[in-house]
Amino acid sequence: MKYNFSKGMAELKPSAIREILKNSGDTIPFSAGNPAPDAFPIDDVRMITDYVLKKEPVLALQYGITEGYTPLVDELTELAHNRYKVGTDNDSVIVVSGATQIMSLVTHCFINPGDTVICENPSFIGSLNCFRSSGTRLVGVSVESDGINIEELEIALKSNQNVKFIYTIPNFQNPTGVTMSYEKRVRMYDLAKKYNVLILEDNPYGDLRVSGKEIPSIKSLDTEGLVIYAGSFSKVIAPGIRVGFVVSPSEISAKLTVAKQTQDVHTAMLSQLIVYEWLKAGKINDHVIKIREIYRRKLNLMCDNLDNELSGYLTYNRPDGGLFVWAELNKEIDMISFVKKASQNGVSVVPGNAFLTDGSQSTQYIRLNFSTPSDKGIVDGVRILAETAKEMRK
Amino acid sequence: MKYNFSKGMAELKPSAIREILKNSGDTIPFSAGNPAPDAFPIDDVRMITDYVLKKEPVLALQYGITEGYTPLVDELTELAHNRYKVGTDNDSVIVVSGATQIMSLVTHCFINPGDTVICENPSFIGSLNCFRSSGTRLVGVSVESDGINIEELEIALKSNQNVKFIYTIPNFQNPTGVTMSYEKRVRMYDLAKKYNVLILEDNPYGDLRVSGKEIPSIKSLDTEGLVIYAGSFSKVIAPGIRVGFVVSPSEISAKLTVAKQTQDVHTAMLSQLIVYEWLKAGKINDHVIKIREIYRRKLNLMCDNLDNELSGYLTYNRPDGGLFVWAELNKEIDMISFVKKASQNGVSVVPGNAFLTDGSQSTQYIRLNFSTPSDKGIVDGVRILAETAKEMRK
Repeated sequence: MKYNFSKGMAELKPSAIREILKNSGDTIPFSAGNPAPDAFPIDDVRMITDYVLKKEPVLALQYGITEGYTPLVDELTELAHNRYKVGTDNDSVIVVSGATQIMSLVTHCFINPGDTVICENPSFIGSLNCFRSSGTRLVGVSVESDGINIEELEIALKSNQNVKFIYTIPNFQNPTGVTMSYEKRVRMYDLAKKYNVLILEDNPYGDLRVSGKEIPSIKSLDTEGLVIYAGSFSKVIAPGIRVGFVVSPSEISAKLTVAKQTQDVHTAMLSQLIVYEWLKAGKINDHVIKIREIYRRKLNLMCDNLDNELSGYLTYNRPDGGLFVWAELNKEIDMISFVKKASQNGVSVVPGNAFLTDGSQSTQYIRLNFSTPSDKGIVDGVRILAETAKEMRK
Repeated sequence: MKYNFSKGMAELKPSAIREILKNSGDTIPFSAGNPAPDAFPIDDVRMITDYVLKKEPVLALQYGITEGYTPLVDELTELAHNRYKVGTDNDSVIVVSGATQIMSLVTHCFINPGDTVICENPSFIGSLNCFRSSGTRLVGVSVESDGINIEELEIALKSNQNVKFIYTIPNFQNPTGVTMSYEKRVRMYDLAKKYNVLILEDNPYGDLRVSGKEIPSIKSLDTEGLVIYAGSFSKVIAPGIRVGFVVSPSEISAKLTVAKQTQDVHTAMLSQLIVYEWLKAGKINDHVIKIREIYRRKLNLMCDNLDNELSGYLTYNRPDGGLFVWAELNKEIDMISFVKKASQNGVSVVPGNAFLTDGSQSTQYIRLNFSTPSDKGIVDGVRILAETAKEMRK
């Protein structure tokens, strides 16, 4: 039988990265995006899970309500308010199966095929593909060292029809590592208000700040119910449990809940109970302090080594947090050839075009992840990249 | 701000059941659909979870691949083949976050707004709402005591455009409890072939057979790659872990995987590892024998009590398994008033129109669940229903 797929899914191209990185199985994974496994609170999770399965086994195993386990929703409402300064009486929180589900639910609730989403260009490929898979038109706006180009953003808002929302990762953006300035956050919010468009604020890395000063979220400015805030425990606890949360105007949260019911009914109860007990035990503050040390060490290790070994071959801005370094290769090095060669030499990196709204455009950028490889992997990997660059310049 | 929701989501009506059952918090839950909590393998889950978090904590907490944990996929491929007799070399298995996600992924991959899905009428409201939420046109075909009306099905296939798939629950259908005969399965498959339409075969209750003989699945007939088979551990292990699996032609499984990546990246690893270790330990056979005893007892308890106390007021066919009894009230009793009155008297049941493709149509049916209430709840609940019926006949 010949299958007749939906338009959005039929047009979603298989990732070019996969082709390029096909045989990169045993390489040093600068191409990955996994949180550092030594940042997982393994002992806490083990203790809590044991406790939960002894104390409340039926609760952990039975169906739950779609919005999330009520005590966890309450705990998250407080956390959002106190720690992340988001959420008013007009907002409500729901638990989701990882932050990617938020992009999916928002798309499900707002996008008719052909509608437009404006996003940073480059941006996180997972979210871009989520939008694309429902037939969304993506309009990319360039990213500067202090965040999205606001003038371009206004032009995009003015010149496109049916713009449903602006998608942004304001902290340590994936892939650029850029943090949006406070001024630009205010201006983005004002533009959203002016053009009557929502903002989908994705903040998976916010807690992973290793330098610089905390900047208020866009959601913290939200007095008109324009901002959907996506929070995640993938980097703060661990990604394998698949727990995130959304803070959005209650009317939107209600709609997202109906959509979630059609997607997975509810998030795994055991995962929810682990997060609930962990938060209730007041673990988050100390844990984040601890994992920031790990990320600070790894980020600086990668950047110091890049500075020492590759200064003539690439340039980058040292990010204040997150998981990635976004580096531009010198013009005389062909980016795609470099990525292939590096993979053959034992290091996989992601070619920058993967993150563009139009992936067929060319770029000199590559994305380097420092959280997945070991410290030794970082040192060895950067050395191999330097050797690759030297080899290619010959 | 006024929110401009997508067409599919905007048109999805809030459930009328919720209104009717609004104040049914403390009633006996014949309206529920939860598996019996005493059927959960709590000790096994506790032991396995402890083992997994000691032996492979990072695996349980780190990102996994979208298709599912590879050893689990292999285990499920064998299980599908040996236990459920589904899957050929042309098929492949992926792990999902509960079977509802399969309906969502199939919708995502095949439905453009306005496309048609043919389903049994009545059918499972969760799946119907999933299809509706993406702008699907639903065409319902009536259900007889041996399954869908095949003549009506052919008319529906002939007279509707862009039919993407037939959705069916062949075993102990929700809500009717009906099991489709082997002959009708063959005829449905032949019609799908003739009209070049897929079949989405949803089998959440297959293992909960308490009487009668096992009937081969439609997927077991699939030589042309027409059938997507949805399996679930919600009833066999427990729903709170959110693990199901799909067996479909490899080209479709690959597309479903891309869609799943945009929805939740992967299913919670801890949940996957629990199912994997439980299957690997060979627990399923004995466990299913054991839980069938529980379901047999509860089903017969409800039906025997219905026969004794309500024989003049309603009729039904005793199902061979599943979770539900589908009962038709005598004409002189107004169904909606009965449901409201029963709720006031302490028992909640679901009004049958909730399961119709056109919920505004009237019906004399109600759905009664026997797995959620305790044995005492079943006895008391049926007595209250009988009192309610008598009261209304006055």
